[in-house]
Amino acid sequence: MRNILITISYDGTNYVGWQSQQGGRSIEQAVKKAVERLVGEEVTIYGSGRTDSKVHAIGQTASFYTSSSIDIEKIPFGINNYLNKDIRVISAVEVGDDFHARYSAKGKEYIYYIYNKNIMNPIFLNKMTHIFYDLDIAKMRDAASNLIGMHDFKGFSKKGSNVKSTIREIYDIDIQKDGNIISIKISGSGFLYNMVRIIVATLVDIGRGKFEVERVEEILKTGDRNLAKVTLGPEGLYLNRVFYDL
Amino acid sequence: MRNILITISYDGTNYVGWQSQQGGRSIEQAVKKAVERLVGEEVTIYGSGRTDSKVHAIGQTASFYTSSSIDIEKIPFGINNYLNKDIRVISAVEVGDDFHARYSAKGKEYIYYIYNKNIMNPIFLNKMTHIFYDLDIAKMRDAASNLIGMHDFKGFSKKGSNVKSTIREIYDIDIQKDGNIISIKISGSGFLYNMVRIIVATLVDIGRGKFEVERVEEILKTGDRNLAKVTLGPEGLYLNRVFYDL
Repeated sequence: MRNILITISYDGTNYVGWQSQQGGRSIEQAVKKAVERLVGEEVTIYGSGRTDSKVHAIGQTASFYTSSSIDIEKIPFGINNYLNKDIRVISAVEVGDDFHARYSAKGKEYIYYIYNKNIMNPIFLNKMTHIFYDLDIAKMRDAASNLIGMHDFKGFSKKGSNVKSTIREIYDIDIQKDGNIISIKISGSGFLYNMVRIIVATLVDIGRGKFEVERVEEILKTGDRNLAKVTLGPEGLYLNRVFYDL
Repeated sequence: MRNILITISYDGTNYVGWQSQQGGRSIEQAVKKAVERLVGEEVTIYGSGRTDSKVHAIGQTASFYTSSSIDIEKIPFGINNYLNKDIRVISAVEVGDDFHARYSAKGKEYIYYIYNKNIMNPIFLNKMTHIFYDLDIAKMRDAASNLIGMHDFKGFSKKGSNVKSTIREIYDIDIQKDGNIISIKISGSGFLYNMVRIIVATLVDIGRGKFEVERVEEILKTGDRNLAKVTLGPEGLYLNRVFYDL
């Protein structure tokens, strides 16, 4: 059996998210069906992790085993033939037997896009989150710098998530403003449920002056989810890439 | 009566274009209905010109007369209340009695966006045109420079268009490449039907080596529409702004 790692971009607007579930189309299910039509056998798709409903991906990854001997460079086009145009496999590589898209991952990088103006640009509807408050980027960067490193991110995760440990490492947070578009790029070892969206929501509240810069350290210290802002919408969130040692 | 000039952004994907017509929703009709609900009287919307089905706008303009005394700064939000989120009025100003969004215009600027890679990025589906050929930007710029100035653009317009004169002036063409995204910004006194899309299609064919750079001058000289490329899709085209002396 060959083990194939594919990288996938998608517009998540019309999907219930990565994971298959009742009551809507999932990215995983669409990819699984397309791969199966290409290779002519049943496959299991191992994703790097879930993305929520309406969340997008530039570089989601997934691996699957197949006995097919199809040329590796033909795999992206072959799968895309059987996918809707809002999902595209952008590359495929052969990996070792013990590689697993989720368990072999060394980290992930997300980008959150904000359209920051009084009136939303309709071109970016469902692609960026609209924030009409003036945001102080310097304060947001200042607050973000306190999140970098190894911390207990319990206060920045959705309550009731069932995980063994809430300790994670954030490698970097890069906040840029280009015209009316603010991008917040966050990379780390891994992320708790809703963690990126809660972090961005908190930074936005700091940027608009509702919270002080120190709020980030308070949430880290106390682990109190109630000190953070309610999460921001999914439409601005992109899974940008998954890191591996290949 | 007050004369109001509004600037409108829209995602044209789900519309038949600016102009009202049978068999689909038009931007003009949506704006007219929303303005009428706001001002409480029937209005005529004078657009700066048509955009085709699926063509977008950053800065389309339209003017209308009204006896309403509503504050000018409340007009954009007031109209937006009655519009779908894929159309937004981004500004409103009061203009003189004899101002007309179309006849007072001194020129227009369009931007055409190309996503230039072997596989399309699904995030830009319906927002950019996918070209998978390698494009030689230097050749495209070289060819474009010959279009600048006053010319007879008959060969770059849709056959059978019923206009008095096919002479127009192009002020500037600016071609930029940023990663996989190519933007072609064209400003001019006015544009014939399908002119921007035919120009871009021709530049793309020059960029990929199907036509020589000299093709542009041949089309200008002969006015032969058959020498130009068939037009490119509407999804990459944006009406960026309309020029006025206000």
